[in-house]
Amino acid sequence: MSEPTYLGLDVGGTKLAAVVADEHGAILHKERRPTDSARGPDPIITDLIGMVNAVASKAGIAPQDTKGLGVSFGGLFDTRNGVSGSVPNLPGWEGVPLRRKLESAFPNVRIEIDNDANATALAEWRFGAGRGFNHVLYLTMGTGIGGGIVSDGRLIRGANDSAGEIGHTCLVPDGPPCGCGKRGCLEAFCSGPSIARRAQEKLRAGMSGGDLLDHAGVALNELRTEHLLDGAQRGNRFCLDHFRETARYMGWGIANAVSLLNPEVVVLGTVATAAGNLFLEPLREEVRRFAVDRSGQLAQILPAALGDRVGDIAAIALVFEG
Amino acid sequence: MSEPTYLGLDVGGTKLAAVVADEHGAILHKERRPTDSARGPDPIITDLIGMVNAVASKAGIAPQDTKGLGVSFGGLFDTRNGVSGSVPNLPGWEGVPLRRKLESAFPNVRIEIDNDANATALAEWRFGAGRGFNHVLYLTMGTGIGGGIVSDGRLIRGANDSAGEIGHTCLVPDGPPCGCGKRGCLEAFCSGPSIARRAQEKLRAGMSGGDLLDHAGVALNELRTEHLLDGAQRGNRFCLDHFRETARYMGWGIANAVSLLNPEVVVLGTVATAAGNLFLEPLREEVRRFAVDRSGQLAQILPAALGDRVGDIAAIALVFEG
Repeated sequence: MSEPTYLGLDVGGTKLAAVVADEHGAILHKERRPTDSARGPDPIITDLIGMVNAVASKAGIAPQDTKGLGVSFGGLFDTRNGVSGSVPNLPGWEGVPLRRKLESAFPNVRIEIDNDANATALAEWRFGAGRGFNHVLYLTMGTGIGGGIVSDGRLIRGANDSAGEIGHTCLVPDGPPCGCGKRGCLEAFCSGPSIARRAQEKLRAGMSGGDLLDHAGVALNELRTEHLLDGAQRGNRFCLDHFRETARYMGWGIANAVSLLNPEVVVLGTVATAAGNLFLEPLREEVRRFAVDRSGQLAQILPAALGDRVGDIAAIALVFEG
Repeated sequence: MSEPTYLGLDVGGTKLAAVVADEHGAILHKERRPTDSARGPDPIITDLIGMVNAVASKAGIAPQDTKGLGVSFGGLFDTRNGVSGSVPNLPGWEGVPLRRKLESAFPNVRIEIDNDANATALAEWRFGAGRGFNHVLYLTMGTGIGGGIVSDGRLIRGANDSAGEIGHTCLVPDGPPCGCGKRGCLEAFCSGPSIARRAQEKLRAGMSGGDLLDHAGVALNELRTEHLLDGAQRGNRFCLDHFRETARYMGWGIANAVSLLNPEVVVLGTVATAAGNLFLEPLREEVRRFAVDRSGQLAQILPAALGDRVGDIAAIALVFEG
């Protein structure tokens, strides 16, 4: 008898991927293709179906002989109705019945679709830094700050699939404008672009960056979070202080979620993983300082473990849920 | 065949109650007694057992013929081990194996014990303002601000029974000191005593309260939230403005929880229920202003429906869970 296999699709604004994985989440086969998002959903869905068939064929299996197909969707997804929501970088996807279309293409295959934040939270819980725990809060600190919540071994999706929006909890009502149209959201302080913007503002106001710009070889308005990270790793005082301040905002936002949800672990991806202890150590202090004692002392703050592989594994993890 | 019946115990710092209820949560019989908390847990537990037997006897039933015994405990309770935590107004209860003691007294009776915030959230969900919904956030605005979270029809207890501490999410890091030892918590702005303290501070700083103190017949340092509520209901400008400001803080704190949890309804007890629309209307505006759009537009903000009966029904609701 053969080992159980799992199919996954990662649908993002720039790339598509189809994978076959084993029961440990190891990727056995993979197909990739650029999304070319301007062409709209129908040709993309045709591509996705073709990619699943191709990757299954590589693995020598039929889709209906797998444990199921998980789809990590790069935007809002209505899991009750199986319909995609509006996604800024996937034009035309609002209201597309993706689940029904995939069910037609793959009859008798279990199909699970969810947004990428939830799928990634499940992946880090099943196969990554959250493995072995039952209460996991996952956060990404990339272009935006997204989150996924596992409580008592179940994903918290909320009433209309909008739970986990920790990036848009408000820290400072009259704070910097956020991409969501509100002000002072956690994301407006701690997303990758916000970290860079705050540093640019300080330097523009006359604070000394030491050798930061010279070493990075960029103009002030080209300064990015990678340059700040590199500076901090070289011991640049401005950069170290800037990450400490960022840890304060991030710790405050995380602590509020910790006081509400009482997780065993908080798993942080992207910038936090790249920065490592120079960011995570002050972050741990701030979470303990701001959170309710019993929750703040319990919660471990860990870097994500799956790294670049997480996109592929996220899709697979959806089929492992429940 | 007789109707199913439920037993409940409400264990608080000032009073104890035992009840028998029917399957609709209606209280059929009740026993009450002062807690006399200084005598410590053992005599209180003996009382509780006697009260359950007495109330069952009044109802003409044996405890083992009921659907179970729910216990709403007025403080931290470790639901995994069945042991009570430290409770400020119940001295000596830390580490008491209450579940085991009740199981010995009532063999073959299902026993469910939880803290009163969770039990009350379940009661408002099953029998009160949250009835018919699957995603409910319950908040009390009394001496403290406590919360209970129902997500997808399940109570979110967290890793060590500390979830739902919305009162200690931080709004202003250098804000007023909170009873928990931190600063600027939601509770430090919006609990009953904090609402009164903030008003006293404004009047002490020279702001005009109009006829407030004269009408209440109290000195400034005796001013309480009830007086402010009475003033607001009479149209006193200072009081109306003060409740509007309170709604801003409360709306901000609730919105952060709404963005994380995406509930269908937020049910508010105590001060919010007493104040009614003069507080709830501005509160609804503030929640929509601060929360992520999809969650803020969905969530209804409702006053608690069970009123004074909630303590009795809370205990019963625990047996209905699951």
